[in-house]
Amino acid sequence: MKRLSSKFIPKIYMAKVLTSRKDDYAQWYNDLVIKADLAENSAVRGSMVIKPYGYAIWEKMQEQLDKMFKATGHSNAYFPLFIPKSFFSKEAAHVEGFAKECAVVTHYRLKNDPNSKGVIVDPDAKLEEELIVRPTSETIIWNTYKNWIQSYRDLPILINQWANVVRWEMRTRLFLRTAEFLWQEGHTAHATKEEAVEETLKILDLYADFAEKFMAIPVIKGTKTEAERFAGALETYSIEAMMQDGKALQSGTSHFLGQNFAKAFDVKFLDKTGKLDLVWATSWGVSTRLMGALIMAHSDDNGLVLPPKLAPIQVVIVPIYKGSEQLKELDVTAKRIKAELESKGVSVKYDDRDTHKPGWKFAEYELKGVPIRLAIGPRDLQNGTIEVARRDTLEKTSLSQDRIVGHVERLLDEIQENIYSKAFNFKKENTWEVDTWDEFKEIIDHKGGFVLAHWDGTNETELKIKEETKATIRCIPLDSKEEKGKCIYSGKPSGRRVLFAKAY
Amino acid sequence: MKRLSSKFIPKIYMAKVLTSRKDDYAQWYNDLVIKADLAENSAVRGSMVIKPYGYAIWEKMQEQLDKMFKATGHSNAYFPLFIPKSFFSKEAAHVEGFAKECAVVTHYRLKNDPNSKGVIVDPDAKLEEELIVRPTSETIIWNTYKNWIQSYRDLPILINQWANVVRWEMRTRLFLRTAEFLWQEGHTAHATKEEAVEETLKILDLYADFAEKFMAIPVIKGTKTEAERFAGALETYSIEAMMQDGKALQSGTSHFLGQNFAKAFDVKFLDKTGKLDLVWATSWGVSTRLMGALIMAHSDDNGLVLPPKLAPIQVVIVPIYKGSEQLKELDVTAKRIKAELESKGVSVKYDDRDTHKPGWKFAEYELKGVPIRLAIGPRDLQNGTIEVARRDTLEKTSLSQDRIVGHVERLLDEIQENIYSKAFNFKKENTWEVDTWDEFKEIIDHKGGFVLAHWDGTNETELKIKEETKATIRCIPLDSKEEKGKCIYSGKPSGRRVLFAKAY
Repeated sequence: MKRLSSKFIPKIYMAKVLTSRKDDYAQWYNDLVIKADLAENSAVRGSMVIKPYGYAIWEKMQEQLDKMFKATGHSNAYFPLFIPKSFFSKEAAHVEGFAKECAVVTHYRLKNDPNSKGVIVDPDAKLEEELIVRPTSETIIWNTYKNWIQSYRDLPILINQWANVVRWEMRTRLFLRTAEFLWQEGHTAHATKEEAVEETLKILDLYADFAEKFMAIPVIKGTKTEAERFAGALETYSIEAMMQDGKALQSGTSHFLGQNFAKAFDVKFLDKTGKLDLVWATSWGVSTRLMGALIMAHSDDNGLVLPPKLAPIQVVIVPIYKGSEQLKELDVTAKRIKAELESKGVSVKYDDRDTHKPGWKFAEYELKGVPIRLAIGPRDLQNGTIEVARRDTLEKTSLSQDRIVGHVERLLDEIQENIYSKAFNFKKENTWEVDTWDEFKEIIDHKGGFVLAHWDGTNETELKIKEETKATIRCIPLDSKEEKGKCIYSGKPSGRRVLFAKAY
Repeated sequence: MKRLSSKFIPKIYMAKVLTSRKDDYAQWYNDLVIKADLAENSAVRGSMVIKPYGYAIWEKMQEQLDKMFKATGHSNAYFPLFIPKSFFSKEAAHVEGFAKECAVVTHYRLKNDPNSKGVIVDPDAKLEEELIVRPTSETIIWNTYKNWIQSYRDLPILINQWANVVRWEMRTRLFLRTAEFLWQEGHTAHATKEEAVEETLKILDLYADFAEKFMAIPVIKGTKTEAERFAGALETYSIEAMMQDGKALQSGTSHFLGQNFAKAFDVKFLDKTGKLDLVWATSWGVSTRLMGALIMAHSDDNGLVLPPKLAPIQVVIVPIYKGSEQLKELDVTAKRIKAELESKGVSVKYDDRDTHKPGWKFAEYELKGVPIRLAIGPRDLQNGTIEVARRDTLEKTSLSQDRIVGHVERLLDEIQENIYSKAFNFKKENTWEVDTWDEFKEIIDHKGGFVLAHWDGTNETELKIKEETKATIRCIPLDSKEEKGKCIYSGKPSGRRVLFAKAY
């Protein structure tokens, strides 16, 4: 990819504000999140502030996912932030997985400190039972469903919740792993196992569709191994995406919970034959972690690259002018083009601020990943032209103003597709079929990427491979065909390949 | 209002499921919230579950408010749920008002109880500084703004947050007063006092517009007395609405915070002349309490009455049939009408379930406040007619199917206006100008409603009136004209009338 020089941008603006991906991928990511005004660390350890530009991208994701949930029959609701401590002991596996690193509310009042100007926790205001800030809501929700479900007529229940959750993480990274994060969690209740499994898979497909068509990220759908399964689930499905450093990022999970939570919270229903049975459950979620995936999958050393379908600003128009007279002339054309694009549903920002130079603006919108930049100067006005720059390839062309609206509409689609293709090809080029342990280690250690290899199906082998290489089994791909082979580690027989990678 | 009899509804369905407003207004409200599937109490004291139908109404409110915030230049962002305890000591008035009844996180880990199957709080995982679950976010946000603001170029900052907050309430009521509730909180930063005051008033107007045009509730805009002011504000503005029992419900507040939070968190900026100055602030919010206002302002003994602009379902179509043959015939017409209405942007539910009788459905949608019900039976099919029932007046008419789409569109507007007019007239009829203490007590004790009366401007008198009558000064109305008078309680001189009422 050639970075074309611009007649408008003085050298000074071209100084890289980001560490390059090659030099330090982790630092590049952090620089980008900060410099593009997406998020920052807060005064509370492990909690982030999601800044307006970052939040606007998250809102675009929410809007689309919400539409998809509703189109498949789900409704939103809201359940309490706090969960009584005892609820966590009710499902055996769940308590192991979730009741450990979490925020515990023990008191409900502060009082003035008699010895200072500050406030202290009032020892008289101790709760009888501690409350846990939800790390996930299966327990409180199934405790509620108990009262909602008597007969098969009350089923299915198809509910989603948009909420904040807290998991006390020791090592945090903006968007990727934070103590508090935003997410949606779906919790459904069904009369039969078949229905619940169907729901689990329907949502997995929905997540994959969202990732591919909106985030422009190809994903691999699969089931998790027992070791990586959600605490309390019989089967966990996930979508796995590849980042530009070859590492995997689990981007969404859908759990078939069987009757575990119904059993734990005694949720039974009368079926059509009058028989009392336990209810079947699923749960599923994606979080602000998707922001990390979106940033890492597409962006480059100049900044963010956003797929048009999730870009808060799809087109920015920058006028090139000296003095208010010139601006006034450009204004008419720029505003006409803005209005025409908006009438086609394109989101446009016209940046006519006189506090910043065009070169500064160019670099700024490049950093922020605005898919298309239009620039218009006095010479363009004379010639009836406009300059079009696309963020994904950094290519620039000059175009007739008459053709600009149709061109931008097509170009937005083209950019969306191009970003996806690039990510698709990258994943393809960095996915390996491997049959020996030496080759496996060589690729995991030096090349990176996804490795499809045989595994003997035991927790023990999985753990040893992880200890020796840091690679984990991301999933058993749904499209993995039956194929006789030998486990790369133990040499024992295996029926299909599984997907290994280092992961976020 | 005459309740017209229906040819379809057998007597059994007409049995009232709600306590009547006359018998017990508080019980009627609670019955309605539960029976209309809006919300319910949860296993966590003071925290509610917002059920799908209630949440759908809240989503309609959010959608509209969010649109209005964005149209006035505001962006959404997200700040941490937890606030370090010490932050609350930084603003003197704020700590008095907010740092008292709140949820305190003291630990970050649970562990297995060696003596039982349960879990206990791990005493080794005690936080160095306790974290408070936000009761409101001024402190954490101004601590963040400190890093965002250096010069006048960084101003204004116009940010809103949709979030959950927790205030430990002892006596809770669904939607009206809950420990955890959902809200939006705007937090803006400005270079001048004038700008900040202008913002405070702009939002007050926005809230009033929303209440009147969407919730169909007339409100009175005014300033709060010092005693009722937000902790840390120089001036608090509110909108006050009248419920059907004559009590006031504060439905939104907008605070001019002066430079208090900038001082507390040391947020200064270089103005255009190069002088360092403290930043000016506002904050403002509405919450799920609005759901309480919406329910109580319009509903009747048959159930909810929703203004069409906030109704999740605006029109329900109920087929009246015997057997699947008849249903098949009705289907075609019903679905055509549904499609035509939807193409006009009307939200329609076609309830063709065979598990419930038409009469049951009629009562159900009446309870749930669906503005328009269309019923169609075999005779209608022969005659080309359809029955139209409006929820607000309970009137029914038979109409030609050809005219139904235009009629429904007009009727939705008419219902919206009628609900507003009814509430407007009710408020007018129950607002009194009073000049003597006896008259004041008589009205507050026996008639209820809003009382405009003179007050001497002292905290002392305000408090005594409250103690003796339970009425508080809801606000000093912005449109209250200068008028010499004597305080109804102390007889001291007063320059204008203020608004008294009992309040939620």
